[in-house]
Amino acid sequence: MKEREFINIIKNTLNSKYIGDDCAYLPELGIVVTQDSLVEGVHFLREKIAPYELGFKSAAVNISDVCASGAEPKYMTSAISLPDNTDENFIKEFYKGMQDGAKGVEVIGGDITGADKIYISVTAIGTTAGRRIASRKNAKPGQKIIVSGNHGSSAAGLKLLLSGQDKNNKFIKAHIMPDVQLEFSKRIAAEIKEDYAMMDTSDGLMDALSAISSESGVMLEVDFDKIPHDKDLESFDDWEDLVLFGGEDYGLVAAANDAYGGTVIGKVLPGCGVKINYKNSSVIYSKEDVEKNLFKHFKE
Amino acid sequence: MKEREFINIIKNTLNSKYIGDDCAYLPELGIVVTQDSLVEGVHFLREKIAPYELGFKSAAVNISDVCASGAEPKYMTSAISLPDNTDENFIKEFYKGMQDGAKGVEVIGGDITGADKIYISVTAIGTTAGRRIASRKNAKPGQKIIVSGNHGSSAAGLKLLLSGQDKNNKFIKAHIMPDVQLEFSKRIAAEIKEDYAMMDTSDGLMDALSAISSESGVMLEVDFDKIPHDKDLESFDDWEDLVLFGGEDYGLVAAANDAYGGTVIGKVLPGCGVKINYKNSSVIYSKEDVEKNLFKHFKE
Repeated sequence: MKEREFINIIKNTLNSKYIGDDCAYLPELGIVVTQDSLVEGVHFLREKIAPYELGFKSAAVNISDVCASGAEPKYMTSAISLPDNTDENFIKEFYKGMQDGAKGVEVIGGDITGADKIYISVTAIGTTAGRRIASRKNAKPGQKIIVSGNHGSSAAGLKLLLSGQDKNNKFIKAHIMPDVQLEFSKRIAAEIKEDYAMMDTSDGLMDALSAISSESGVMLEVDFDKIPHDKDLESFDDWEDLVLFGGEDYGLVAAANDAYGGTVIGKVLPGCGVKINYKNSSVIYSKEDVEKNLFKHFKE
Repeated sequence: MKEREFINIIKNTLNSKYIGDDCAYLPELGIVVTQDSLVEGVHFLREKIAPYELGFKSAAVNISDVCASGAEPKYMTSAISLPDNTDENFIKEFYKGMQDGAKGVEVIGGDITGADKIYISVTAIGTTAGRRIASRKNAKPGQKIIVSGNHGSSAAGLKLLLSGQDKNNKFIKAHIMPDVQLEFSKRIAAEIKEDYAMMDTSDGLMDALSAISSESGVMLEVDFDKIPHDKDLESFDDWEDLVLFGGEDYGLVAAANDAYGGTVIGKVLPGCGVKINYKNSSVIYSKEDVEKNLFKHFKE
């Protein structure tokens, strides 16, 4: 699945100004809208995730997208397709998890159909009143690069999960029930006066940095040492890769003039690509470099 | 897939006042929201439908739900999951069809992921300004039962399609590219002064009549001869069944004091169930009777 190429084809076919950010922003209605799917065998393995956890994650993924826009997550609808042999308990646990993952956002609709495998598609709506809405296109030279949330934990958790480790492990928990950055999103969107860029790190920190860089036409320079991560992550052989390329942490990266409670990890410069300063040297990643190394789901 | 039981479990788990109609109505935002999925092998067969037609239908199904609420369809997002071997042309044709089926509604987002089979989930948003929003719960004794759109054509088309008939046939066209009742919806919602019930006939006319009856706690009495249908349908052996139970016509049924350009097919009475007058006799269908005879997708 060449997801990025296909998104470009969709953009060109529809010729829509709304496609490009995590959410579509509809100023006329004062809302943002986002829709995302989780597919069995692609985004999760049925035998590795409990129905409650799956519901929790389905909600969190979409709320994170609303947070990335700066809007206030308010409502959610879900469409779930399930194999014939699914029992009542699965549905109950799934929706309980969804409600908990939704952190107060109201689940207002639930379509359900049959299917061979589990497919979940969730739509979240956020309101924009009192908030300034972000766009990936808004980064400008001179701004700070700010991160909210630890990076690498979820990818480490996925590794442990697939190796058969018990779920009672902080990294596995970070993978299964990610912590969405509601507070940082609220603060920056409510306080900021200028246009700013923001994106969630669902496909990895480097993916978000690279997308902001290419959409805004700027270079992002990041000091690796400043990227917030769990210190215990450093026991993994490839921990630096996990921090940069590991997906599904659902942190936020922003380019803005102030920190708004986040961690400043670098700055926006004229140019293109993402420059990572690490141990007295630095590497510039082009958009193509990043795409080659992107966090891969089980199958994409 | 015991869809109806599961919907009840979801309702109880979420304890949400919004679940029950074709759309969730959010007065705070002046919008309605609906989300529906089309799954390969359940709602369509890949070898029987062209990508353009699939896109068209995905849009129409959701716009019909917005029409059933009385709101004005405005925006749509889609999440589509596709097998690895899907080519660029599929995406182009699908989204062209979606845009045409959307009848001016703007497609504002398009998530895309991998999957074993084709899975499509579309969310549509309608605005409620200048419109009175319907609910299945609103039918009252004394009201007329009004239908907009022909019934039975789509189910006849599906029969012909599955028997290998050429697509250049009006019934097959009605099945693949259904005609959504935008005008009737607009007129009734803009002109009506009282509360009214309305629902689309995506799962068949009897399904909609039965749902309005049970949700409103009333009996609906319908004269079969008055139900609008294509006269050529009468050449099918089971044409009366197709009219009553055939799904996917995406007509509208309403209970209201006037006709608003639709066809009056009966009246609302105190009681319960759906009474069909046919050839000098009449049959009362309970909710359970209707559910036994419901239009079945390929697999549900």
